[in-house]
Amino acid sequence: MIKALSLFQGVDDATVSDFAHHSQVMDLPKGSTLFLQDEPAEWFYVVISGWIKLFRESLEGNEAVIDMATTGHLFGETAVLEDDTHSFGAAAVEQSRVLRLPSALLKKAIKDDNKMALAMLTSLSRHRKRQTREIESLTLQNASQRIGCFLLRLCTLNSAEPIEFKLPYDKSLIAARLGMKSETFSRALNKLRLETDITVKGSTVKIPCMESLSHYACSACSNEFPCSDLY
Amino acid sequence: MIKALSLFQGVDDATVSDFAHHSQVMDLPKGSTLFLQDEPAEWFYVVISGWIKLFRESLEGNEAVIDMATTGHLFGETAVLEDDTHSFGAAAVEQSRVLRLPSALLKKAIKDDNKMALAMLTSLSRHRKRQTREIESLTLQNASQRIGCFLLRLCTLNSAEPIEFKLPYDKSLIAARLGMKSETFSRALNKLRLETDITVKGSTVKIPCMESLSHYACSACSNEFPCSDLY
Repeated sequence: MIKALSLFQGVDDATVSDFAHHSQVMDLPKGSTLFLQDEPAEWFYVVISGWIKLFRESLEGNEAVIDMATTGHLFGETAVLEDDTHSFGAAAVEQSRVLRLPSALLKKAIKDDNKMALAMLTSLSRHRKRQTREIESLTLQNASQRIGCFLLRLCTLNSAEPIEFKLPYDKSLIAARLGMKSETFSRALNKLRLETDITVKGSTVKIPCMESLSHYACSACSNEFPCSDLY
Repeated sequence: MIKALSLFQGVDDATVSDFAHHSQVMDLPKGSTLFLQDEPAEWFYVVISGWIKLFRESLEGNEAVIDMATTGHLFGETAVLEDDTHSFGAAAVEQSRVLRLPSALLKKAIKDDNKMALAMLTSLSRHRKRQTREIESLTLQNASQRIGCFLLRLCTLNSAEPIEFKLPYDKSLIAARLGMKSETFSRALNKLRLETDITVKGSTVKIPCMESLSHYACSACSNEFPCSDLY
C-alpha cells in the first residue's frame, strides 16, 4: 500500500520497507481528533478508509475546512518542511482508518535519498496545483456551481446514468468545505436543483446526466470536465 | 541576487553561477504578457521590480487572479514538476523588470543535486502554506476584512503612524486578486472605512493605527498580525 503512494514512486524497496516497519494502522471513531494546528508533527498519515477533515481555526474560533482527505490521500507530510509543526488540525468526520508513518524517517529520507526528495517534490507540486484550482473555484464559481463541481467529483466516470450515490458526509460539512455558510448552501443547492435536473433527497443524490451538470458547473472554471487529474 | 533567493539557499556557488550565466534581464511594459496558461515552460522568473499578475481563465473567458508577484518573488518554477507546462498565465500589470532563468537547468539541478531538490521543496512548501492561508481567507474573512488584510500586508512594520502609501496597482485588479467583483469591492471598502479609521482617496491610503485595523481584519483569520512570514 505504501509502495503504491505517489510519494514513494521511484523510491527503492529498502526505503519503502523501512517505512512499512515503522508504520501503524489506527482506527478512528467519528469525531476523533488526530492532531491540532501548531502541534509538533511526529507522524504523517495516509487514509485507508473514511474521511478526515483538515482545518484551521480563526482567532474568533471559526473553522476553515481547508481540505477533506479520503482513501489514498496523504496528509501532514509537509510538516517536515515547516519546523516539524502541523499548520492545520485533522479530525475524523466519519469512522475512519489511517496508516501513520514517522515524520523523522521521511525527513531523513528526503535528505539522504534524492529520489525521495524528487517524489516529495512531485507530490507537493500536485497538491499546489489542486490548491490553485481551489482558489480559482472560490474566485470564479458561484455557490451553485461549486456544489455542482463537488457532486461531479464524486461520480465514477463512465457509470450508467442516472448516477445515484450518497453524500459522503454531513451537508453542514460540505458547506464548510466549499467555503459557504449553511444557509447559503441550502439556497445554492435549491438553485442548482432548479437549473439542472439533479435531485437530492436527504443524503441521496441522483444525477440523470453528467454532461448537463458539467455544462452548468464547469463553464466558470478553467478545466473541462472531467478534471479527475486533481488527485 | 540569484544567490539571495530562497530557492538557492544552501546550493553551492558553482550551480548558482551556472544559473547566473544563463539568465537574462527583461523589461516588460505595463500590460505585456509573459506567457499563457498551457504554454511550454522554457523559463522561470524572478521579479526585480513591478507587479506580475498570475492568472487562469475559465472556459467562459473570466479571469481568476491566482497571485500577484512582486520584487523577490519567484514564479513559473513549478512547471518543471508538471509536464514542463505553465498551469497559469503571467502578465505585467505595471512597468516591470524580471530575471528569466532556464527551466531545463532547474530540472537538471534538482535531479543531480539533492541540496537543490531540498531548496525547491522548502520553496514549494512555503508557497503551499501561503495558498492554504489564501483558501482560509476566502472562506472565513468577509470582503471588508480581506481588503483590510490586503492593506496591512502593504504596510512596513514599525513605521511611524499614520502610515500613508499608494495602492500598488488598479483597484479593479485588487478586487480580482481578492476574489471580488468591482461592485463588491467598492461596497466593502466603504464598509471598511466606516468600521475602522482608515481613509482612501484615489489611490492614497492612510492608516492612522495598524493595531485597530488588524483588530478588525485579523480576528477572522487564524494568524495574528503581523503574518509577514507569508513570503
